[in-house]
Amino acid sequence: MPPGSGEFDRIARLFRPLAAALPGARALLDDAGVLAVPPGREIVVTTDAMVEGVHYLPGEPPERLARKLLRVNVSDLAAMGAVPLAYTLTTALPKTLDDTWLDRFAEGLAADQALWGCALLGGDSISIPGPVLVSLTVFGHVAPGTAVPRSGAKPGDRLWVSGTVGDGALGLIAARDGIAGLADADREALAGRYHLPTPRPALGQALVGIAGAMLDLSDGLFGDLGHICRASGVGATVEQAALPLSSAARAALALRPDLADTALAGGDDYELLFAADPAHDAAIADLSRRLAVPITAIGRIVAGEGIVLLAPNGTPRPAPAGWTHF
Amino acid sequence: MPPGSGEFDRIARLFRPLAAALPGARALLDDAGVLAVPPGREIVVTTDAMVEGVHYLPGEPPERLARKLLRVNVSDLAAMGAVPLAYTLTTALPKTLDDTWLDRFAEGLAADQALWGCALLGGDSISIPGPVLVSLTVFGHVAPGTAVPRSGAKPGDRLWVSGTVGDGALGLIAARDGIAGLADADREALAGRYHLPTPRPALGQALVGIAGAMLDLSDGLFGDLGHICRASGVGATVEQAALPLSSAARAALALRPDLADTALAGGDDYELLFAADPAHDAAIADLSRRLAVPITAIGRIVAGEGIVLLAPNGTPRPAPAGWTHF
Repeated sequence: MPPGSGEFDRIARLFRPLAAALPGARALLDDAGVLAVPPGREIVVTTDAMVEGVHYLPGEPPERLARKLLRVNVSDLAAMGAVPLAYTLTTALPKTLDDTWLDRFAEGLAADQALWGCALLGGDSISIPGPVLVSLTVFGHVAPGTAVPRSGAKPGDRLWVSGTVGDGALGLIAARDGIAGLADADREALAGRYHLPTPRPALGQALVGIAGAMLDLSDGLFGDLGHICRASGVGATVEQAALPLSSAARAALALRPDLADTALAGGDDYELLFAADPAHDAAIADLSRRLAVPITAIGRIVAGEGIVLLAPNGTPRPAPAGWTHF
Repeated sequence: MPPGSGEFDRIARLFRPLAAALPGARALLDDAGVLAVPPGREIVVTTDAMVEGVHYLPGEPPERLARKLLRVNVSDLAAMGAVPLAYTLTTALPKTLDDTWLDRFAEGLAADQALWGCALLGGDSISIPGPVLVSLTVFGHVAPGTAVPRSGAKPGDRLWVSGTVGDGALGLIAARDGIAGLADADREALAGRYHLPTPRPALGQALVGIAGAMLDLSDGLFGDLGHICRASGVGATVEQAALPLSSAARAALALRPDLADTALAGGDDYELLFAADPAHDAAIADLSRRLAVPITAIGRIVAGEGIVLLAPNGTPRPAPAGWTHF
């Protein structure tokens, strides 16, 4: 920022209001934004971009796209235990794009940024002879040295997941292909999880000092658990029967048992997966009650490497298809 | 970061070395990077993206593209008076891209980041069914409240520019179309300014407390001066005869006098344009000597609005073509 003056009025009208809460954004008038760091805190930075036709379908409503983009970035902050603070926005838009598209995209950001306690600090607005690309870099803060890594899981740790898993993957299928016989309410619940996930920043912040390793589920439970195991130099066992499924997911899997492994291996849940010493069991149960977020023990961290999935009858079973990460 | 594991080894090989100087980058293994803020400093954030076919030609060597992208971002930090610290990288690459492209792009970053004292903190790596897009978000730091705005120019301030102006615009023409009769050394000097500008972070930092308003020249001298005037609620007069031209630019304009206004109105110089109270004249002259950077007084800030360009004979003249900003 700022762009050439052709974009000037549009930026002022659509984006300056999103920056109003941050004096350091300087009304988007300067070459850069100034991020006032809360005293005694470190800044946590994450960035995620989405491309039309790769990360979302061309018909995606721009309001919802904006909200999802903000949420997946806030989810990365949550996984570090960081408090959201600000974000910068880069848009690369084809000249052929409908004039109202950016208005609607900005509306989505306006509606969502207040939920997560962050505001616009700056950005860049360019044209592209290709698909829409939108990218956010999001800033949060933590006490120095407390950001939760992926690398701190230890043998004997319990493995926990927030909320329910599999809804994102089933939601994509329900929205795109449909699931024959599924009640409308269940279809909408699943599709909603895919289109507009709910990150867990409050939980992530509360898990600082409790979780030894943490990430948010974006690649799927097993792929992401693989990231923790690889970064920590450990293995894991997961009990399939313990995996928390929503009632909508259970309804979908009753109709389509063939989707069970898709639900296990699929991504886009944006729940927190973390490892914690069993000494923290009571604190975690207390957190779950206090924040009204289900937190479920699904397995253990073990010495060695690799992930063993225990079928409901207790026997080890092969990894779900799609689980190519580990 | 981190991406799906298909990208994992490539990231490790190409980008982890770029992050080695920043412990908070956590070897690019976590959901986000941690930016340790130097004690008592604020963070300055800027972001600039470039798209193939829009911001550079398809044959552009990726090493040079990487270096220019880093430099234009560092130039934005320089305009705020900030010290470069770290950056995040987003790449959106078509699957058809040559395998060596990203290797060469990373080489360019490696070669340049040390020059500016920053290192890689994190990023995102995605695929795009379209042109290459590369984007950096760059972080610097300043003492609280000292980042130089665009809005602080006052009537009576002298207007200064570092280095020479017009080389970027002439360099683009020289590189793309050629300038008949221009010596090779002059052509290369001008094209070099366009392809690989030199930002002025040391000068920008030294101007904290001296410059009332500052920006870096990316839209062209008059467009950018318009930004300062508009943000500050002032006007300006500029003496054309005072504008500092390189010997290569003088040679090009002797052959092609028709390009004079292009040189004045064109962008991509990445020099610093700033307004300062005349009480600082001696300090600025001293800075120029100490940093071995030419700094030239080119006009004055005046009350009112609009920019008046004084021709070499002292009469006001019309704005150069292309000066559409104000």
